[in-house]
Amino acid sequence: MDLLHSALKKIKTINEKWYVTAQAQLDNLTKPRGSLGRLEEFAKRLVAISENPVPELDKKVVFIFVGDHGVVEEGVSAFPKEVTRQMVFNFLCGGAGINVIARHAGAEIVVVDIGVDYDFGNINGLVSKKVVMGTKNIRKGPAMTKDEAFKCIEVGIEFANEYTEKGYKIFAAGDMGIANTTPSSAIAAVLTGKPVSEVTGKGTGIGDEVLKNKIRAIEDAISLNKPNPSDPLDVLTKVGGAEIGGIAGLIIGAAANKVPVVIDGFISTAGALIAYCLNPEVKDYMFAAHNSMEIGHEVMLHKIGLKPILDLELRLGEGTGATLAMLIIEAGLKIYKEMATFEEAKVSKQ
Amino acid sequence: MDLLHSALKKIKTINEKWYVTAQAQLDNLTKPRGSLGRLEEFAKRLVAISENPVPELDKKVVFIFVGDHGVVEEGVSAFPKEVTRQMVFNFLCGGAGINVIARHAGAEIVVVDIGVDYDFGNINGLVSKKVVMGTKNIRKGPAMTKDEAFKCIEVGIEFANEYTEKGYKIFAAGDMGIANTTPSSAIAAVLTGKPVSEVTGKGTGIGDEVLKNKIRAIEDAISLNKPNPSDPLDVLTKVGGAEIGGIAGLIIGAAANKVPVVIDGFISTAGALIAYCLNPEVKDYMFAAHNSMEIGHEVMLHKIGLKPILDLELRLGEGTGATLAMLIIEAGLKIYKEMATFEEAKVSKQ
Repeated sequence: MDLLHSALKKIKTINEKWYVTAQAQLDNLTKPRGSLGRLEEFAKRLVAISENPVPELDKKVVFIFVGDHGVVEEGVSAFPKEVTRQMVFNFLCGGAGINVIARHAGAEIVVVDIGVDYDFGNINGLVSKKVVMGTKNIRKGPAMTKDEAFKCIEVGIEFANEYTEKGYKIFAAGDMGIANTTPSSAIAAVLTGKPVSEVTGKGTGIGDEVLKNKIRAIEDAISLNKPNPSDPLDVLTKVGGAEIGGIAGLIIGAAANKVPVVIDGFISTAGALIAYCLNPEVKDYMFAAHNSMEIGHEVMLHKIGLKPILDLELRLGEGTGATLAMLIIEAGLKIYKEMATFEEAKVSKQ
Repeated sequence: MDLLHSALKKIKTINEKWYVTAQAQLDNLTKPRGSLGRLEEFAKRLVAISENPVPELDKKVVFIFVGDHGVVEEGVSAFPKEVTRQMVFNFLCGGAGINVIARHAGAEIVVVDIGVDYDFGNINGLVSKKVVMGTKNIRKGPAMTKDEAFKCIEVGIEFANEYTEKGYKIFAAGDMGIANTTPSSAIAAVLTGKPVSEVTGKGTGIGDEVLKNKIRAIEDAISLNKPNPSDPLDVLTKVGGAEIGGIAGLIIGAAANKVPVVIDGFISTAGALIAYCLNPEVKDYMFAAHNSMEIGHEVMLHKIGLKPILDLELRLGEGTGATLAMLIIEAGLKIYKEMATFEEAKVSKQ
């Protein structure tokens, strides 16, 4: 069996008996029952995902999947295409937003060229898993071939397998790619059934006229390519992007390996939605980091059934929100593991 | 002039020119303008509060003001009164929720006995600033004397002065005191003008019958003591609590010293509301940590004009939300200080 189908087959809904075990411990701690709200939920999820009564989050990693998008030539973005590769160098030099947040959260960064339209050669720190030299312009035809879309997902699964093996305990899914809100909106529209205009926003900061053009480009791409809403791989092939496929694969691989994965904003959630449509059981392994400013984000989170952790009006991507949310999830785990019980602290119970 | 009035006089609205300076730097960083949303707002606030283009948050401290409440004898709480002092020992041994969160956030803890109805003697780690041996039952008379309320506020101001002097760069305001949602709801009702039933919740987990009794007790306390809504010190005296006064003082002292202060949940915000009514300019120096589950919390935040950072269904107090929020505020500052500019990273601008 291929990597994708064997990973999909391995994924199981988490066993709720672990929630009961974890809740019993939480209710013994010196606090009113349930008074740490969602922090308690995060601890329970981590116990159930790892099937371990004392999970660890000591090794954290954020993957930044980077790709270019042919649709950029339709004038859908505020930034020129070169910024994708320029930002790769910025990641490698430690100067981007995600570098700062990852240092703050104690997470490592893996920068993955999965589809940049630029030949980096061999450069230190960049992991080359290039599947395409950028996608094709989806207004003129499919983004990539079915085989390429499949390979993108497999790249993500391979990372999940490799980093599970290396002992990492939580993953974050980040992205970089000028114009990548365009394929993400296309995916959102096709897989949620909403009109394009309801799931398409201003990305990194386009004006009203450009937004109208972006919506038309996506509508054209969908009517030209006719992606099949009940075939997520077809959707990824026709109107997706390489980094979105990588993220979908990372999530599938995380779930198959019983490792929690934090999804970031709009692009990362488009990848999550592809993964969810391939196997809804991945949901149990995902944490939704934040509520992005991009209008289609909430629609996709709702479809998957995830509630975001943070709401800070972020719209940067790169995994910044996901990595910041790791700090909150970790707080929940530490509460669960480090607080004294009523008995230990000689505190009267309710 | 006394400590309170000289502190109140020192407080100035922050100078908006610092926002402009900070915004210019934020707009030079390698990210779309404004794409880090509220993280950027936090950085700007820190620059403006400290009047320093490169602020530091290296030394953080959370103060836990602890007090007892005579109104506990009215059966308004789910926990017995002894829990207040038992939790003091738990704080000192490192086993409480706030100990875990403070370690996670790299913040120090100062535990202050400002009004516990117990003689701790001299114990290591507890700062004794006892003003009252618990407040009196507000259903039967005023919580304390005007002089005591005044002293509670001065205790908070003294801590702000001392810890500014010691080089601490951000404060969090925490509380502990069985039954202290009752005086907090009374303060909320009097100072916002809302009916008691709209600002009174289930605290640490009382049932519907106990809630009804709690509302009646607060209504009785207000009609008996007649606190003057335009005199915050009178409100603190008649229906407040020692720890709430300490928190109000800490906030006033923080603002007077140009130090940012993170307010926690319901009780901490009752203290913040007292401070705000004494001098509305304290608002600029406060960060609201989170949106508590306690129904009166949002009403008070709205009155002050603060938007919470986190929304995690917390209702523990102790400064847990405030200390967790420090990590998010700090992320904003690091973004501002550590990210590369477009020029440094050779990234094309919008």
